[in-house]
Amino acid sequence: MKYYPDALERLVEKFARLPGIGTKSAQRLAFHILSLPESQAEEFADAILAAKREIRLCPICQNLTDSSVCSFCSDEKRDPGVVCVVAEPRDVVALEKTREYKGKYHVLHGCISPMNHIGPDDVRIKELVARVAEGGINEVIMATNPDTEGDATAMYISRLLRPFGVRVTRLAYGIPVGSQLEFADGVTLSRALEGRREM
Amino acid sequence: MKYYPDALERLVEKFARLPGIGTKSAQRLAFHILSLPESQAEEFADAILAAKREIRLCPICQNLTDSSVCSFCSDEKRDPGVVCVVAEPRDVVALEKTREYKGKYHVLHGCISPMNHIGPDDVRIKELVARVAEGGINEVIMATNPDTEGDATAMYISRLLRPFGVRVTRLAYGIPVGSQLEFADGVTLSRALEGRREM
Repeated sequence: MKYYPDALERLVEKFARLPGIGTKSAQRLAFHILSLPESQAEEFADAILAAKREIRLCPICQNLTDSSVCSFCSDEKRDPGVVCVVAEPRDVVALEKTREYKGKYHVLHGCISPMNHIGPDDVRIKELVARVAEGGINEVIMATNPDTEGDATAMYISRLLRPFGVRVTRLAYGIPVGSQLEFADGVTLSRALEGRREM
Repeated sequence: MKYYPDALERLVEKFARLPGIGTKSAQRLAFHILSLPESQAEEFADAILAAKREIRLCPICQNLTDSSVCSFCSDEKRDPGVVCVVAEPRDVVALEKTREYKGKYHVLHGCISPMNHIGPDDVRIKELVARVAEGGINEVIMATNPDTEGDATAMYISRLLRPFGVRVTRLAYGIPVGSQLEFADGVTLSRALEGRREM
């Protein structure tokens, strides 16, 4: 049974295929699009097409970019001797917000995950190995997520890079700043103990 | 500080303007669009444009349609003597799903709400009065939401229609089927008592 006009049903269906959007939300979003002035609906459609058309991967670090080389790789003020390896482009944003890191990046676009049939060739590991093999890199910081898949990926990459004599480090595990000790989980707490430092 | 390429930032911003979508969700949706094959992204953009272009209001009942007259108004098997008045197109869908109602509809596109500066002229009331004035309608069923605004709108319309000698009814209030009495709120329960029927 068809309740809405075809063009509306199609739009609802497109929204419903987006991650985290159910049928009810998709309907609400489609009705919202109908309520927009024509010009704003066109801008929305254009933004989708422009993003697909203009955004590609940086050939060096694999981050998203709209130039031939991304702004991080082409920035000469950044230390080319340090490369921070992250799983996703949004992790680059999280690190940039600290304003502490001044090296380069490498974006894997995922982590190795045998459960989800994602092997080493499905993420951008060989591009990283090629960069290290070219020379000029002293340290590779593994900044994948502190979970099973992130840890396994970091471990796998560190073994691959060992022959090149490059220093491979991992972000510190520990209790989050501003959190309360009583609510810290046991694993985090034991990692924080393990990694304790002189004051 | 700009973290993502312009085209991506623009797409995130468009998603973030949709109702119920925050910045984090907007980013996730934009990344999802980037991960789609080009053809699917184009279909999405087309669906937005097509919905805006093809969907208009039925000149009779004000429901959404892609034809000159909507499928309910042009359906000759439906009783033209009964008109069910709802606030939104999605309410038509809810009523259709019951498969009980065989009359016509009228969609107000909102309810009177002085708090939100929505007056009688901002919803499609005069189109309803014109339909009733034309004659041929015996009963108008008020199926606006059972809340303050829905009740006020129903009351306002019933007064407007009184001079035409048409029967105006309201959906029954009561306890929802399948619910548990102990969890019913007091107002609903007193309405259910008030509206009790012979068995």
